[in-house]
Amino acid sequence: MTIYFKNAYINNSSVVAGPFLIDGPLKGKFDEEYNDFYDGEKTFEDCEIKELKKSISYIIRKEKDKNIDLLLSSDLNNQIFISNMVAEKVGIPYLGLYNACASYCEELIIGSSLLYNKDIKRIICTTSGHNMTSERTYRNPVEYGAPKPKYSTFTVSAATSTLISNEKSEVRIECGTIGKVTDLGVMDSNDMGSAMVPAAARTLFEHLNDTGRNEKYYDLILTGDLGEYGKQIFKEYCFTEYGYSLDNYNDSATLIYNKDDKRVLAGGSGPSCLPSYFLIDILPKMRNKKIKKVLLLATGALLSVTSSNQKKSIPCICHAVSLEVVWYIYIHLFFLV
Amino acid sequence: MTIYFKNAYINNSSVVAGPFLIDGPLKGKFDEEYNDFYDGEKTFEDCEIKELKKSISYIIRKEKDKNIDLLLSSDLNNQIFISNMVAEKVGIPYLGLYNACASYCEELIIGSSLLYNKDIKRIICTTSGHNMTSERTYRNPVEYGAPKPKYSTFTVSAATSTLISNEKSEVRIECGTIGKVTDLGVMDSNDMGSAMVPAAARTLFEHLNDTGRNEKYYDLILTGDLGEYGKQIFKEYCFTEYGYSLDNYNDSATLIYNKDDKRVLAGGSGPSCLPSYFLIDILPKMRNKKIKKVLLLATGALLSVTSSNQKKSIPCICHAVSLEVVWYIYIHLFFLV
Repeated sequence: MTIYFKNAYINNSSVVAGPFLIDGPLKGKFDEEYNDFYDGEKTFEDCEIKELKKSISYIIRKEKDKNIDLLLSSDLNNQIFISNMVAEKVGIPYLGLYNACASYCEELIIGSSLLYNKDIKRIICTTSGHNMTSERTYRNPVEYGAPKPKYSTFTVSAATSTLISNEKSEVRIECGTIGKVTDLGVMDSNDMGSAMVPAAARTLFEHLNDTGRNEKYYDLILTGDLGEYGKQIFKEYCFTEYGYSLDNYNDSATLIYNKDDKRVLAGGSGPSCLPSYFLIDILPKMRNKKIKKVLLLATGALLSVTSSNQKKSIPCICHAVSLEVVWYIYIHLFFLV
Repeated sequence: MTIYFKNAYINNSSVVAGPFLIDGPLKGKFDEEYNDFYDGEKTFEDCEIKELKKSISYIIRKEKDKNIDLLLSSDLNNQIFISNMVAEKVGIPYLGLYNACASYCEELIIGSSLLYNKDIKRIICTTSGHNMTSERTYRNPVEYGAPKPKYSTFTVSAATSTLISNEKSEVRIECGTIGKVTDLGVMDSNDMGSAMVPAAARTLFEHLNDTGRNEKYYDLILTGDLGEYGKQIFKEYCFTEYGYSLDNYNDSATLIYNKDDKRVLAGGSGPSCLPSYFLIDILPKMRNKKIKKVLLLATGALLSVTSSNQKKSIPCICHAVSLEVVWYIYIHLFFLV
């Protein structure tokens, strides 16, 4: 299901980044960096609340017009309670969403649709991730120190905010493809890369099919958090299933940490993995017209501890969002140069 | 934040109801009734999955056009995994939402906005509730048999589906008010009625203020699940804070079970409480023009077990949706009579 947006733009962003992420290639580019999992708070959850709140403060501080009409937010905690707590603190009308690590694209799609209502002018879309809170939400209490297999990923600790509105900017949200839940039977909650590949490939196929484009149309196709192994499987799966040759493809999870950082195993994950990499590395390149057409494929594993304990396999989802550099500004600059 | 919808209608609905609810005043009016918390399944969760899936099947069975473009769904389980599992089984493009028991109005607001995209024609909004799964998600393992205070509510076991589209029907979704998270410091996870009152009153005030209406404008103002005590507090709070005299007001939680059913304490709750009562009792009355203007105030307590254990108070939210009988059909019938 692909829907097109008329007047939705990315206007501003902020990222507050935590441990491991701040040792990686994006070091020094964040709005703020914190270097331990508590950051002066008593609990991991309070730390996550603090960082998400800061991320929203940064984006509002950057804007002349401080008025925000709506907050769309998601995180990995049960009942997305980090988002709930922060929504209370910032006092902005709030809609909570949950599609696990696919939530960023879900927010952009819902947000861009809500902008059709002229009363909603400015929306902040936020994602929150904290390695320790998500480990204990999905797997084991962190105090167990359970060893993990090399194909598991390391949830990105970061809070991201993206301001979208009808106000024209360099980067337009052109269309979005809402994915279907796909489950090919992976049971291992450490192996989310493999589990999410079929959902990602299916959404990519539906997106290209709906829009009549081929895989070369985009300068960059960027998945969320498949990890080193999932990325390889995705490329092979797309080639054998659909015949796509993905030279313009990469995966955020494999780009966000240092390549030689053994602690992060197969790479990043979490709802903040894709937006952290996109907002810090890709969005500035789009603003500078170095990259013009980007397809984000946010991938989410929709498991819970209860579903894992009840031996259910992992249902996965992927939503796609197409972003493009706005042409009229591009021509304008071209003539100036 | 109030937004108006141009072309959003309620076209069809279905409710599958479970224990306690089927002993109440709505008995015999549901699409299907099941009478124990397993309904032949091995776990409570599998039972909840089965009922939600059935509810979607019923609504599709009633329609000539079987094509559904989008599923919006929410439930009370961690990571809304019942919705995730069912979305996989029905194979409809899916967006997961979470605002606890305020999710029904959240779905109607997001759904009605998504209908601005002409590619999305028909949306099913579902809510799922199961008393046993929500008890163990939010409070104690049900095997403990922990006694509860008289002001606590009994989560409604029901799966509801509402089909909305651009296609004209008797009942139009006119506008919606997106609420702000409100927390006045209630700590007791059994006393959600009291906790949610300020959020409900604030959203009612913002709705009336934004639309320039007074509280008498509606034939019925219906809150979601405040319960017997919360309902009284709400009426008093609205009078003392805002001067509203609410003679046209009721609360679904107090209407859904038998008055003399001691097992349910202060009444119903859960995301299916409001839609079950609305779809079974109020919607037919709107179709028959007996009630013409209805304001739904879905109330949600955004706590989690972690937030309760960490001694945080309960952030609450309320979203409002205004529904009205379509005038042109009404005039038409008037002349016929």
